[in-house]
Amino acid sequence: MTQIVERHLFGPGPTNPYPEATEALGRPLLGHLDPVFIQIMDETCDFLRAAWGTRNARTLPLSATGSAGMEASFVNTVHPGDVAVIAVNGLFGQRMCEVAARCGAEVVAVEHAWGTPVDPERVVAAHPNPAIVAAVHAETSTGVRSDISTLGEAVRASSDALLVVDAVTSIGGIELRADDWGIDVGYAGTQKCLGVAPGLAPFTISDKAFARRVERPRSWYLDLGLLGGYVGEAAAKGGGRTYHHTAPVAMVASLHAGLRRVLDEGLENVWARHADAGALLQKGLQEMGLELFAQEGHRLPDLTTVCVPDAVDSAAVRRELLERYNIEIGAGVGEYAGSLWRIGLMGPNARPDAVALILAALGEVLGR
Amino acid sequence: MTQIVERHLFGPGPTNPYPEATEALGRPLLGHLDPVFIQIMDETCDFLRAAWGTRNARTLPLSATGSAGMEASFVNTVHPGDVAVIAVNGLFGQRMCEVAARCGAEVVAVEHAWGTPVDPERVVAAHPNPAIVAAVHAETSTGVRSDISTLGEAVRASSDALLVVDAVTSIGGIELRADDWGIDVGYAGTQKCLGVAPGLAPFTISDKAFARRVERPRSWYLDLGLLGGYVGEAAAKGGGRTYHHTAPVAMVASLHAGLRRVLDEGLENVWARHADAGALLQKGLQEMGLELFAQEGHRLPDLTTVCVPDAVDSAAVRRELLERYNIEIGAGVGEYAGSLWRIGLMGPNARPDAVALILAALGEVLGR
Repeated sequence: MTQIVERHLFGPGPTNPYPEATEALGRPLLGHLDPVFIQIMDETCDFLRAAWGTRNARTLPLSATGSAGMEASFVNTVHPGDVAVIAVNGLFGQRMCEVAARCGAEVVAVEHAWGTPVDPERVVAAHPNPAIVAAVHAETSTGVRSDISTLGEAVRASSDALLVVDAVTSIGGIELRADDWGIDVGYAGTQKCLGVAPGLAPFTISDKAFARRVERPRSWYLDLGLLGGYVGEAAAKGGGRTYHHTAPVAMVASLHAGLRRVLDEGLENVWARHADAGALLQKGLQEMGLELFAQEGHRLPDLTTVCVPDAVDSAAVRRELLERYNIEIGAGVGEYAGSLWRIGLMGPNARPDAVALILAALGEVLGR
Repeated sequence: MTQIVERHLFGPGPTNPYPEATEALGRPLLGHLDPVFIQIMDETCDFLRAAWGTRNARTLPLSATGSAGMEASFVNTVHPGDVAVIAVNGLFGQRMCEVAARCGAEVVAVEHAWGTPVDPERVVAAHPNPAIVAAVHAETSTGVRSDISTLGEAVRASSDALLVVDAVTSIGGIELRADDWGIDVGYAGTQKCLGVAPGLAPFTISDKAFARRVERPRSWYLDLGLLGGYVGEAAAKGGGRTYHHTAPVAMVASLHAGLRRVLDEGLENVWARHADAGALLQKGLQEMGLELFAQEGHRLPDLTTVCVPDAVDSAAVRRELLERYNIEIGAGVGEYAGSLWRIGLMGPNARPDAVALILAALGEVLGR
């Protein structure tokens, strides 16, 4: 591999990083207990609080990818036999069921058709007294946005359950207000709209959820009680850091730089930029005669699902986009593996030039 | 933070990375299913087999730090009530006990004095029929090397237990021969002698251990049965990749570059370079009148533990090294927090210039 390959990452993630995030990866490495790194970590947690829309003291980047954030959410909150009501409208809702069950939950899955949003009424009607209600904000498998604000209201009105939310494909791309919406536990990824390489899971947990946590969870690595002494506001206030594990310092420095870029632009401006790019793309695809998969009115701007036209070889199109144009788009997953494409415009790619490029290239490949 | 700080990382890790590893971090990001990235991942697994000294098909970088490698080792192999005999001669042996217990093991800890190596005879005498025997090859808390070859022989002669070994501070620095020594499950880190930033856990598991694995472990994220479909030789032979999680592509590219550098130099040459640097350092420290902590004959070359002289303020010395010389060394841990220093010469720092610098600076600060 002597030649370096440069791609346009228009799939479901990772996206191309913000240049600031890439630049930070190449900086001289710091020790994980260096005072300069501790300041970077503290600022990263502050920046994450802004991105989540939360004041939670325990807001931090977990040292693994977004899926580990999902696991951390359940392994720290599920006591043996707890009922977890999980809204399922795509792959990541399904995965939540599997992960929660392994953590010892009695899972009540509330199935929705793929391509449709979560129905808060059905979710809260599924069980009278769950310990946990969980849902995906932005389903990466289907391109659907669900209304977490309304779900949060419904949950609060009907039970004392903790609300666990997957924000992997929403954070830094569409409106997200963890505190206003009543999110108790949230996890995300860095490689989507935050525009940073994959490797960390932005995570937040409310005081209420932390107070109800499992004291000695099955996972040592993801034990929030131990992590709280190592990172975050709680540790800073305590005045000392307890060594837990070696933080991925280069990745944290990169996340710090990416978040600063996002917050400098302004969260609402960033959301508007994603909304504009997504609208442009979706208009262009429909003008090309293509059909969108996600239900109208609930489409994510940052991740668009497109129905592969009849008689078109989905994989061949993706291969030509990659080989001729250096463009990556995603296939569908599960039963939609061959019948959907997933086109992401995330982070630095949420721009008119990216829209123009993908529309032009796809039009040429499809002969439309 | 407008000024970039550059440190000499002479602590217990992370070390300064090899320049090749840093350069790779800044390259254009690839998608985790891109054929170019899959080739990088496959080569990385090949390189890791060389670094481990193994032919295990299931040799891969886990998408989290070394401590998650420890957790993966136990969560995939401990069936409820299994006896795990764990040699404890420092902090990481203690941690193994905690992690294994959370995974459901009945732990038999074989305690050794800190600063001494693991005694294979005591370990195998501790239980007649354990499912697992575990030990740390290079104890980062004490600077001690244990003889895993002899331990492996003793284990094979006395039971059918799986041998689990922590190679975090040995891989890429001192002799490590997983297959020859009978290691069934091994985990490591990238941020020590491999000279790569922290964030991944090089991992290997034998066919025998994999066959005895837990079918549906408590951890979904670290489930080797699922990971096997996503990465590694097994997946490559199967001809297809099953999506599991989004690999930390930038970190994997960096590990690939670091490993290539190590293998280009030649493993035995790299080991000799670490041995030479450690011997030089240890000689110099003793000539300065300082006492070494680890038992003679069992000292790691890549991580040296030094007794803080009476009446010397350990933290003040470390602070002056950091502030005046940009040199990081480590404190001790546990009851040795204030009475030991830990000096690492790992990866690119295993060189005479690093030895000269730390000896000169420490001599000046101590007035010796």
